[in-house]
Amino acid sequence: MKRFEALAADIATSIRDGLLKPGDRLPSVRQASAGRHVSPATVFEAYYLLEARGLIRSRPRSGYYVVDKPRRLPAEPETASTPDSQARPVQISSMVFDILRSAMTRDVVPLGSAFPSPLLFPLEKLGRVLANSATHMDPWSTVDDLTPGSLELRRQIALRYVLDGVHIDPGDILVTNGAMEALNLCLSAVCDPGDAVIVESPCFYVCLQALERLGLHAVEVATDPREGIDLAALERAFQQRRPKACWLMTNFQNPLGSAMSDDKKRALAELVARYRVPLIEDDVYNELYFGSRRPALTKAFDADGWVLHCSSFSKTLAPGYRVGWVTPGRFAARIAQHKLTLSLATSVPVQLALARYLERGSYERHLRVLRSTLEAQRDDYTEAIAQYFPAGTRVSRPGGGYFLWVELPASTDALDLRQRAVASGVSLAPGPMFSASRGFGNFIRVNFGHPLDKRALEGIRQVGRLARRG
Amino acid sequence: MKRFEALAADIATSIRDGLLKPGDRLPSVRQASAGRHVSPATVFEAYYLLEARGLIRSRPRSGYYVVDKPRRLPAEPETASTPDSQARPVQISSMVFDILRSAMTRDVVPLGSAFPSPLLFPLEKLGRVLANSATHMDPWSTVDDLTPGSLELRRQIALRYVLDGVHIDPGDILVTNGAMEALNLCLSAVCDPGDAVIVESPCFYVCLQALERLGLHAVEVATDPREGIDLAALERAFQQRRPKACWLMTNFQNPLGSAMSDDKKRALAELVARYRVPLIEDDVYNELYFGSRRPALTKAFDADGWVLHCSSFSKTLAPGYRVGWVTPGRFAARIAQHKLTLSLATSVPVQLALARYLERGSYERHLRVLRSTLEAQRDDYTEAIAQYFPAGTRVSRPGGGYFLWVELPASTDALDLRQRAVASGVSLAPGPMFSASRGFGNFIRVNFGHPLDKRALEGIRQVGRLARRG
Repeated sequence: MKRFEALAADIATSIRDGLLKPGDRLPSVRQASAGRHVSPATVFEAYYLLEARGLIRSRPRSGYYVVDKPRRLPAEPETASTPDSQARPVQISSMVFDILRSAMTRDVVPLGSAFPSPLLFPLEKLGRVLANSATHMDPWSTVDDLTPGSLELRRQIALRYVLDGVHIDPGDILVTNGAMEALNLCLSAVCDPGDAVIVESPCFYVCLQALERLGLHAVEVATDPREGIDLAALERAFQQRRPKACWLMTNFQNPLGSAMSDDKKRALAELVARYRVPLIEDDVYNELYFGSRRPALTKAFDADGWVLHCSSFSKTLAPGYRVGWVTPGRFAARIAQHKLTLSLATSVPVQLALARYLERGSYERHLRVLRSTLEAQRDDYTEAIAQYFPAGTRVSRPGGGYFLWVELPASTDALDLRQRAVASGVSLAPGPMFSASRGFGNFIRVNFGHPLDKRALEGIRQVGRLARRG
Repeated sequence: MKRFEALAADIATSIRDGLLKPGDRLPSVRQASAGRHVSPATVFEAYYLLEARGLIRSRPRSGYYVVDKPRRLPAEPETASTPDSQARPVQISSMVFDILRSAMTRDVVPLGSAFPSPLLFPLEKLGRVLANSATHMDPWSTVDDLTPGSLELRRQIALRYVLDGVHIDPGDILVTNGAMEALNLCLSAVCDPGDAVIVESPCFYVCLQALERLGLHAVEVATDPREGIDLAALERAFQQRRPKACWLMTNFQNPLGSAMSDDKKRALAELVARYRVPLIEDDVYNELYFGSRRPALTKAFDADGWVLHCSSFSKTLAPGYRVGWVTPGRFAARIAQHKLTLSLATSVPVQLALARYLERGSYERHLRVLRSTLEAQRDDYTEAIAQYFPAGTRVSRPGGGYFLWVELPASTDALDLRQRAVASGVSLAPGPMFSASRGFGNFIRVNFGHPLDKRALEGIRQVGRLARRG
């Protein structure tokens, strides 16, 4: 973040926190320059950025004022999806790869990226912990800490659940190469090619790609943009499609941001046990909540081991370290065998470093900062979209994670919009990536995991312009 | 290694190097104790161990002498295997897991283990390099160095090939979670369930387990214990079984220790190109040669990209780090997509550390020590087996790696022997683990990757006793 962006972020926080109230006059450029020990140009650029974001307004020959209108939030997407619940082979991977390829370069404004900014994570501190544990590693741990993984790390993972009243035994946890390997292990352990698997509508494209790679059929089930999958529709699909698994994100679903209530999770756990359908619970955003407490896991209500709960440290602590885990319930033996024959184990020095960081580090403090940063960025992005996108645009208001689900006017073609956006240096994730039936043609997913700096704001303005022209 | 074992190893080296010649008298226990600054008990235990290994002999009231007979090498297994070349579904995994489970504890003498001693590797030095690179890691590398992997690491890998005259472009290399993930990616990229895959007879059980997990059928092809797979038999199998892939270990095959000549590799590369059958070349022992030069890769003769070459650092430098790679030839795009949807990427800090170690470290020096240690251990184990196993036992004489393939008298039941050995604290890898048709009933694979200390020697004596009892 450049100096002027840091200053703008600081002032934006003061406005959000009410230290600066609507109508308040900001210090003059000269005053602020002296007071903040920055150049007048820096102050000027910061004020310009805040003005572009709609937070302050200049009055000629008078100065800059905090805008007096309350910041209005756009409406949320309302309607639950209505997929046809057919079981169909998935053919989406090549479109997804085409789109991802254009998002993988640093030059592009990462609105379509799946990753938050790596600068949000304590990578330097983690590096020091990794340094310490790598230089003191017992050589025999390279054998002992192979699958199911370092006992110390599994203890630390279990401990975090215990703090929230969920009893998971360290012996029930298996460490994997990120949640993605965990999810794939679950799928291939409970399904054979041609089997039907229930997914949300919309759902994370990696889930669809996994189904495609394994030759599985997707059954898309109606999903509410706030409350997650429709349990009545899910039960009908159980009866009609005889699926071998369902893969759901119960907390801060990607892309919707929906979260299921505790009661709904309890009912979900009962439903999958009743129909004996393994539930693969993809719960990687669980720790990124903006509310007062960590949301429940469906796993917490799983009496008979039908829930395979998967998570990771990639979104919360250690991107690029590739450490995740699965608590596979009744499928534990099979999952362990698949892991052993698929990749043997997860990198041992990295496991040991994470265990040590969790034991001694400041994970809670880091998470608190991360959550409030993401929450503030959600508001920043929401407001920018409200300001620059076409009238009638609806934006989700997720209680965690770092994705907005944006419903553009019905006439918008998100695939076309994405192509024009990429041509002007902005990546987008269009709705059809998130659906085996390629629905959601006027939706995009917007990543708010990067600070809304000048470039990102410019990206949003640009997409807004393109969408209006669309 | 305990003090007396280190002393014994030192004296054994002097005998092997000819500094101590047959008939030479060793220093008395008192002399050696004073000269070596160790206790008399240590010298006594060392002499006892050398006597048990058949290297020295005590003469009453006279002292210890280097044995004067030349050390005799046992005969090698001679006959190439004669499998029936049927395509059959594989059902071996649960037997293999039963056997591996009993070998996974430190209490057991690891004759049946698949891993060499972790003490053979520069883990402390690697830890320091990892420390350094982790604390200076560019946060954006957690995004940039995802699949296909760190360019710096891929450059270093390519450079090692170039040194041997093999041109592999860094852009053709994809970093994986160990060779095992690489091999699995290759299999699933080129095969569908029900397809036939050619394997050696015998072959590494992990290959069979991968086939079983993916629902593939194994076609076992005759393999010579010294020169590897029979190319005429391979060509017949191509014609008769229409396989979708073959998975071969061309250098120091596990379990045989066989190695294909350059000419044979060239012919193999031509054969697979002619029949358009992808060759998955599992080449993890390539760097562990005892001869004067690194053996060739079949990949070096691959003009049209039909060879998918897989290797790793797990056996040569960094066990437990889980870093391998694949050079997938014409299947590059598909393999990259599978890797992205299977596990996204390989741990970034670990990739960066290996790149830095290769660039600055003392890899060559470490490898030279490792190779000569393994070669000496091969001789130690071979002699101990010759001394304690039943008459008529044949032992392979591999030019690299760390496995002996031991043919016991025809009446031996290796599965039964293994069970009795485990009961007395020694793990074994019985022949039937290495074959979809469960052949090789009187063979065992012996790991010589651990020093032949007192415990290992006692383990070999014990297996010899059990085998004699039959």
